[in-house]
Amino acid sequence: MTTSAPVLYESKASPNARRVRIFIAEKGLEIPLRAVDLGNKEQFSPAYKAINPRSQVPALVLADGTTIAEVPAIWRYLEEEFPRHPLLGTTAKTRALVAMWERRAELDGFAAVMEGVRNAVEGLKGRALSGPHAYEQIPELVGRSRQRVANFFADFDARLASVPFVAGDAFSAADITTLVTVDFAAGALKMPIPAGHAALQRWYDEVSARPATKA
Amino acid sequence: MTTSAPVLYESKASPNARRVRIFIAEKGLEIPLRAVDLGNKEQFSPAYKAINPRSQVPALVLADGTTIAEVPAIWRYLEEEFPRHPLLGTTAKTRALVAMWERRAELDGFAAVMEGVRNAVEGLKGRALSGPHAYEQIPELVGRSRQRVANFFADFDARLASVPFVAGDAFSAADITTLVTVDFAAGALKMPIPAGHAALQRWYDEVSARPATKA
Repeated sequence: MTTSAPVLYESKASPNARRVRIFIAEKGLEIPLRAVDLGNKEQFSPAYKAINPRSQVPALVLADGTTIAEVPAIWRYLEEEFPRHPLLGTTAKTRALVAMWERRAELDGFAAVMEGVRNAVEGLKGRALSGPHAYEQIPELVGRSRQRVANFFADFDARLASVPFVAGDAFSAADITTLVTVDFAAGALKMPIPAGHAALQRWYDEVSARPATKA
Repeated sequence: MTTSAPVLYESKASPNARRVRIFIAEKGLEIPLRAVDLGNKEQFSPAYKAINPRSQVPALVLADGTTIAEVPAIWRYLEEEFPRHPLLGTTAKTRALVAMWERRAELDGFAAVMEGVRNAVEGLKGRALSGPHAYEQIPELVGRSRQRVANFFADFDARLASVPFVAGDAFSAADITTLVTVDFAAGALKMPIPAGHAALQRWYDEVSARPATKA
């Protein structure tokens, strides 16, 4: 594969791909997108497996053919190559705080929603974990997922009562993961932000009004 | 809290703390360690919760009192502040590749072992997920954990048949997480590297001989 600039393999159906599209739009970058048709299982085709053997989107393919997969790794590449409009912090301390809060949003929020979806949806039988291996669904995880998402909402509501953005004073990648998680929970689990979580709602209304979130 | 340099709260019983201790030793840093007594549940004490409300180790407390928790966030801080002996890559591309492979080692390997432990151990009843919230154990996850660890061994054996280190040509944080995972699986799940995984074993023998791994 030869291209003159990185290309992003992604899907409008993938909330992980949305995390990267919003990041790209916030930085004002023009990265060519290549749609992978998850509905038709294109991610398992030999052509796509040659790009990412794990059959996951998103994946960023560099000009030299190297594939960078995993959302935080793609972000790291883009931030290093295109430092303007930083989204991963600007000092040792803020970079660490963004990494910490983004990870909490992902592990406590995003991954919890994903667990609920993958263990419930009929079409994901035998695919309860993303990646190259088959795992059976475990129905008990669906209920635990909802508990985890409720705790995530409460924890982030408390956090956002004292700071304007998830990682502190500046908009960052931690806000991107949190926003995508809130929308994913509302859509896939029918769990919108609970009434009474005023700080989380205030933050959501502000952040979701940013043009990049439409990416 | 005022100190003149960062201090690491950690425990010899915590494999996550070991990931940070090895990182510090590989970089040749002198960071004061403060033991948190997990056996006596000191992580749930008001004093420790004031440091890390999530009751987890490790946590790095900076001179200004800021707490950095989560292993990759602590690493990011230390690498930015002390760039000598880089462990997170040296170019945009190698930084992204380290981030990608370290994350796979953690999500496919380390987290899989942890899932097996937390859902099985009597003393962790009601604590099946780390953090501030209570979750019941799900016995089905114990078997799935072993499946995941076996797949992780096979995948990383295949990877290490073609490259000397997990992320490519240089020792990195991805090797640290992989090493800690292998030792954690052998100890806690009684799952050593399977016979026949020659590339993974070759890598393990080399990497575990590094003095920093004793940290």
